[in-house]
Amino acid sequence: MDFEEDLNAKLLEHKDVTKVKVRFNDTDAMGVVHFKNYMVYFDDGFVSFMNSIRNKRRIEEMIHEGLACGVKHVDITYEGSAKFGDYIIVETRIKKLGNKSIIFSHMLFKEADKELLAKIECTRFVLDLKTNKLINISKFLEYFLK
Amino acid sequence: MDFEEDLNAKLLEHKDVTKVKVRFNDTDAMGVVHFKNYMVYFDDGFVSFMNSIRNKRRIEEMIHEGLACGVKHVDITYEGSAKFGDYIIVETRIKKLGNKSIIFSHMLFKEADKELLAKIECTRFVLDLKTNKLINISKFLEYFLK
Amino acid sequence: MDFEEDLNAKLLEHKDVTKVKVRFNDTDAMGVVHFKNYMVYFDDGFVSFMNSIRNKRRIEEMIHEGLACGVKHVDITYEGSAKFGDYIIVETRIKKLGNKSIIFSHMLFKEADKELLAKIECTRFVLDLKTNKLINISKFLEYFLK
Amino acid sequence: MDFEEDLNAKLLEHKDVTKVKVRFNDTDAMGVVHFKNYMVYFDDGFVSFMNSIRNKRRIEEMIHEGLACGVKHVDITYEGSAKFGDYIIVETRIKKLGNKSIIFSHMLFKEADKELLAKIECTRFVLDLKTNKLINISKFLEYFLK
Repeated sequence: MDFEEDLNAKLLEHKDVTKVKVRFNDTDAMGVVHFKNYMVYFDDGFVSFMNSIRNKRRIEEMIHEGLACGVKHVDITYEGSAKFGDYIIVETRIKKLGNKSIIFSHMLFKEADKELLAKIECTRFVLDLKTNKLINISKFLEYFLK
Repeated sequence: MDFEEDLNAKLLEHKDVTKVKVRFNDTDAMGVVHFKNYMVYFDDGFVSFMNSIRNKRRIEEMIHEGLACGVKHVDITYEGSAKFGDYIIVETRIKKLGNKSIIFSHMLFKEADKELLAKIECTRFVLDLKTNKLINISKFLEYFLK
Repeated sequence: MDFEEDLNAKLLEHKDVTKVKVRFNDTDAMGVVHFKNYMVYFDDGFVSFMNSIRNKRRIEEMIHEGLACGVKHVDITYEGSAKFGDYIIVETRIKKLGNKSIIFSHMLFKEADKELLAKIECTRFVLDLKTNKLINISKFLEYFLK
Repeated sequence: MDFEEDLNAKLLEHKDVTKVKVRFNDTDAMGVVHFKNYMVYFDDGFVSFMNSIRNKRRIEEMIHEGLACGVKHVDITYEGSAKFGDYIIVETRIKKLGNKSIIFSHMLFKEADKELLAKIECTRFVLDLKTNKLINISKFLEYFLK
């Protein structure tokens, strides 16, 4: 097994778990978190996942180096509802490593009772902000993980 | 053809078009609209659609009557990007009328050049806030359209 | 009276009125608009004001020309509360034209019953994004209004 | 010194420090945190302060008991700017305990270099959601701290 296969296998096994607290302004007049705010919670999962695979690099710095992660597709199923003050557990894995995109899988649970809140698949790509072109994922990972 | 079939046929033919202006705070450090904010734009399309099918009822008042529209599922594909000051056209149709849910289809275009920005399928349900139970869609429509 | 005094006098007399619709996700679990969202509404008033003083220039384009309007200070008093679907009238004037900043005054009313919702004073400055320095307000206005 | 004076003295001495991480969607096209989002950060400081003064009560539960904290006035001066990934330290104190309102003072610093980002004074009141009337602050504190 060569380096790239090895890396991919490790990435596909990796799981990140992070925690988000629901703010009062995340709720709406139904008393629960508005559906758009789950986008923010799983985005926290993405940032946490990327920063958990390698110590030295932080995804937050990428943009200062002319790279940006964009979102191509989101599929989200809402299974429960969260309230102000709830802690939400975000579990993040990579579902598929493509040439031009990565599909992330996120599961959101209420910390208190482990109720499933939402299941998400989110496809992301990497853009070179100078050329405005997509960057090959294996090149990006090689760069990001080095 | 009876009343219900007739109503359903009409609803499935109906198309609503509304317009949203991109605010500065809708953008992020990449200079374009953050992906979560498209959820707000197609939600405007939903409100506009519901208020366009019948003059007397406004979806905004439903919540005061103990009914709430929730979101069960969103599938969104991002095709372009919008900037501060852009006007976005939101086209909304019903794709499918189920017993317990309605699937809405939204298409978002940049007004200036008709660039496709995003395609969305959003499944919504209606909740009786007193009993916390799903309401049958045909009953809801009968009530809402009367 | 010379050109600059004349311009200043006109600006200080100018009033802009614009309208914002309250979205469902602007509300919180108290059923009313969350206090942070009033910042978005009066920002709409600022954009509308700037675009009403001269036809040809749009404040939205400034950022593409290397200029940015920043906010230095906000003083906001909440007098009422708005709900999903309410239309809010935003009245905007200039209270003071300084050398390095402009103080805007915004009044927010509920359209339906003219209830006062909030009074705002917001101090803004103009930044040259290349040099990262403040731009003299009279120079900015000369440029913007030409 | 009686109980109430003693309590007030303690509250006025109390300081809470909490930390917020800047999300990508908190930024705008200027590359820094949009001015409205500071409202969210100091609101975190308020929640943290209230939950730090007494172990057993959590401010998040108040709303379920028919009480709500509203915001009457915010005065915010922006001194710096924060970016995606920055950690912001929120220092919260009570500046003044009134009969019907409390004035909170918040200071926001960038964690990395202690740069002052914003100074805030925020006046809050407590509302009885059943009667829609203001609750006397000393009564609220007696209830909340018991």
